[in-house]
Amino acid sequence: MSVEAKEQAFRDYVKKMSNYGEAIGLMAWDLRTGAPRKGVEQRSEVLGTLSSEVFRMKTSDTMKSFIEDLSEDSIFQQLGDVTKGTLLECKKEYTKLTNVPEEEYSKFVVLTAKAESAWAEAKEKNDFKSFQPYLEEIVAYNRKYVEWVGYEGNKYNTLLDEYEPGLTVDIIDNVFGKLRDEIVPLVKEVTEAKNQPQTEFLFHNFPQKHQEALSKDILKSMQYDFQAGRLDTTVHPFAIGLNPGDVRVTTKYDENDFRTAVFGTIHEGGHALYEQNVDLKYVGTPLCSGTSMGIHESQSLFWENFVGRNRAFWEKNYDLLKSYSPQQFAGIDLDTYYRGINVAGPSFIRIEADEMTYSLHIILRYELEKGLINGDIEVKDLPEAWNDKMEEFLGIRPSTDAEGVLQDVHWSGGSFGYFPSYALGYVYAAQLKTAMDKDIPNFEELLREGNLAPIKEWLTENVHQYGKSKEPLEILKDTTGEGINPTHLINYLKEKYREVYKLS
Amino acid sequence: MSVEAKEQAFRDYVKKMSNYGEAIGLMAWDLRTGAPRKGVEQRSEVLGTLSSEVFRMKTSDTMKSFIEDLSEDSIFQQLGDVTKGTLLECKKEYTKLTNVPEEEYSKFVVLTAKAESAWAEAKEKNDFKSFQPYLEEIVAYNRKYVEWVGYEGNKYNTLLDEYEPGLTVDIIDNVFGKLRDEIVPLVKEVTEAKNQPQTEFLFHNFPQKHQEALSKDILKSMQYDFQAGRLDTTVHPFAIGLNPGDVRVTTKYDENDFRTAVFGTIHEGGHALYEQNVDLKYVGTPLCSGTSMGIHESQSLFWENFVGRNRAFWEKNYDLLKSYSPQQFAGIDLDTYYRGINVAGPSFIRIEADEMTYSLHIILRYELEKGLINGDIEVKDLPEAWNDKMEEFLGIRPSTDAEGVLQDVHWSGGSFGYFPSYALGYVYAAQLKTAMDKDIPNFEELLREGNLAPIKEWLTENVHQYGKSKEPLEILKDTTGEGINPTHLINYLKEKYREVYKLS
Repeated sequence: MSVEAKEQAFRDYVKKMSNYGEAIGLMAWDLRTGAPRKGVEQRSEVLGTLSSEVFRMKTSDTMKSFIEDLSEDSIFQQLGDVTKGTLLECKKEYTKLTNVPEEEYSKFVVLTAKAESAWAEAKEKNDFKSFQPYLEEIVAYNRKYVEWVGYEGNKYNTLLDEYEPGLTVDIIDNVFGKLRDEIVPLVKEVTEAKNQPQTEFLFHNFPQKHQEALSKDILKSMQYDFQAGRLDTTVHPFAIGLNPGDVRVTTKYDENDFRTAVFGTIHEGGHALYEQNVDLKYVGTPLCSGTSMGIHESQSLFWENFVGRNRAFWEKNYDLLKSYSPQQFAGIDLDTYYRGINVAGPSFIRIEADEMTYSLHIILRYELEKGLINGDIEVKDLPEAWNDKMEEFLGIRPSTDAEGVLQDVHWSGGSFGYFPSYALGYVYAAQLKTAMDKDIPNFEELLREGNLAPIKEWLTENVHQYGKSKEPLEILKDTTGEGINPTHLINYLKEKYREVYKLS
Repeated sequence: MSVEAKEQAFRDYVKKMSNYGEAIGLMAWDLRTGAPRKGVEQRSEVLGTLSSEVFRMKTSDTMKSFIEDLSEDSIFQQLGDVTKGTLLECKKEYTKLTNVPEEEYSKFVVLTAKAESAWAEAKEKNDFKSFQPYLEEIVAYNRKYVEWVGYEGNKYNTLLDEYEPGLTVDIIDNVFGKLRDEIVPLVKEVTEAKNQPQTEFLFHNFPQKHQEALSKDILKSMQYDFQAGRLDTTVHPFAIGLNPGDVRVTTKYDENDFRTAVFGTIHEGGHALYEQNVDLKYVGTPLCSGTSMGIHESQSLFWENFVGRNRAFWEKNYDLLKSYSPQQFAGIDLDTYYRGINVAGPSFIRIEADEMTYSLHIILRYELEKGLINGDIEVKDLPEAWNDKMEEFLGIRPSTDAEGVLQDVHWSGGSFGYFPSYALGYVYAAQLKTAMDKDIPNFEELLREGNLAPIKEWLTENVHQYGKSKEPLEILKDTTGEGINPTHLINYLKEKYREVYKLS
């Protein structure tokens, strides 16, 4: 068989996997946006059937042969770039999946399914002890996983690599350490500030229909393409890229707090812009998606915070917002509004945290995960360790485990190594903003004019188009000229929150 | 391998096919209810990938072995009933699909894809000649298909069998002949009636939102289970059963003619009730669906006509309707309303035809199809043959082919044998109504009370629950005690329309 024919056969095989993945994606979207309750059990079986098929294809002897044949140096050099990247991605996945003993993996799948229910019950009853044995097994599996897959340096590096290739404990310790050291005192400053923002007006009734219309207006102004997507309602908002021509945003509406929908939609819209603008040459390969959790989060957070929580953005859009809920904002001037939506301070629940304190919630989880995987912390000691860190970082101590260690679903699903991406996304976003400022010095003027196209174009050119063909640190290096650097986020937060809280 | 193990392996194999089919169904629903335009091309590839896989499984050597092994008499007798039915269904499908030379089939798929575009253009330009060569090829394929698959009696029987197993040209000639002989003079009577219904009020503005709410009210009263389904908007309404717990209805709204949504929703709701109430033991097999196009249509038409166009139904629901569009119906009493929604008479377009004339549109197509397949009519002569029959049946002659032979998409898609099911559905529905009257003598009283549950229960017990485990004529025999018999429909139409048009 010629190299061309081999390459084509491999690409066809991968395309088939990708097509199955798209069908799975649509079913997942459907389950979360309105699939009827009584069909869910059977639909889950369909998902299982297709997922097993994809797993089988990823780990099959056919895949093994493709990898062996095409990796041979003389052949590899003749492959197109997209195929090269695809091959490396498939190889990585093959190695990872085949490193795990099949029986252990099956047991783990069953374990996490049970653990999720156990977690939900434990959270509701505020009973960590009932969840503890499940979490112990999950941590034990993750420790074994690291041994199966192997590791360099810190054991936790192997888990980090799943979500943020190239990032290591050494790097993150440094980044998070600096963030923590600077943000903790900033939070204290802000908390003690005399001039607190007015917030009462945030909680007036804002009709859902009007929030929907506003959300669509904003998505359009962000250059989200409604011919390549749609906006639906859900309980836990997400964006999902089925293919670049079909990237769906979901949001939820709280009639007594419009911020949920407005900032949630901007956030998911940021994710969606990434997926809509991946170069079409990657369609049908694993490269046709965001490169990592962290870079993905950098896009959503860029839009949510650097655009959506920017004063200049509301100079343009405050009248529009008011038109959808006039009474609510009567007598509230732009400055009061701007300070209100940027209210910040210590709180227990991560998903309700503000821009300033959010990273601290993540750093806490990172330190605990790292300790668990390396055997420096045991599961039974988690609740206390959690509460101690909350007190250290935010000056508040949870009175129940439900508002402490039990608040997030992630660990019950077996995900370790995922949390850091959230804070890395913030750090990346601030670095991208600094880089963008050089090319677009009139950034705020554009916001004031409502002309967001150049901002979206810059992100497409520097980030979106590459999909998964560049690693996170490569994107960062090419765009900003440096590695990961928390200074930009620190400076941004200090400057912004001292201004919002009138501290300077 | 034990018989039990063999049976289980077969059922697992079929379940996998069924699960793929469910994923395909969801994608089809999505494409027709709001999938973004730019993702359609890639989504079509995903559909292609999964459909090929299902085709491959249906015709594989594995399937062949299952059929051979399990059909062996000593083994077959040990199988459960569901497996027996499933095996027969798979065997039928295997035989059919493997009878067609693969190359011919591929050519045909390409042909119909092109023919659909050619048809759309020909219809728009009113240019039959441009479509003629495509239709000639399609007819030629269907003639060859009959030879490949074989036939008994009339060649057209083979095509009928695809949609309405057990029905033959002999049977249908008799049924349609009687229908035609009785309805043609009835149409003439009605057309010439002095006392025509008032219809102007039908075309006032009825806001879409209110039509939506009304549609939901009516579906609920029909016992459609919204926890096992949902209602969406589309261009060409349909119902689709993904599994009995997820059966979706779609409808469309014309603000200047509420009948489109109201009767369209009731019609699709009738289809949906069938799919929601198939016995769960059939899930994961090809038996988990309506048994034939005609029986399916009997369900939708039963609800649309025998319930939805019944005076007693509106005695209950006219106030509800009025509450959603009060001005429109001010001064219109129930009798005027009832006569208005039952206006009937000759018209050119099948999908706009009324209950009384609809069958004639179908009989016309049946006679032409039968002639084409048997070589008694050639494609080039179709437009004239069509127009002649329109004049014979309805007393009107299309002035263009767009409102004549080019009006329907079906033939361009290669479907022959499908049209008769529409009229058979009417005939079945009227027979079911007669049978129901024996068990539910207070049918109209129930409508008047809005208590539709006993009606739905009767249909579930007699029709829905069996899915595809009984053939159409078996259902009819078990339920009505007779074979197909057009007398019930004829009597119903005569009685009703003489009353509506005040002819008796």
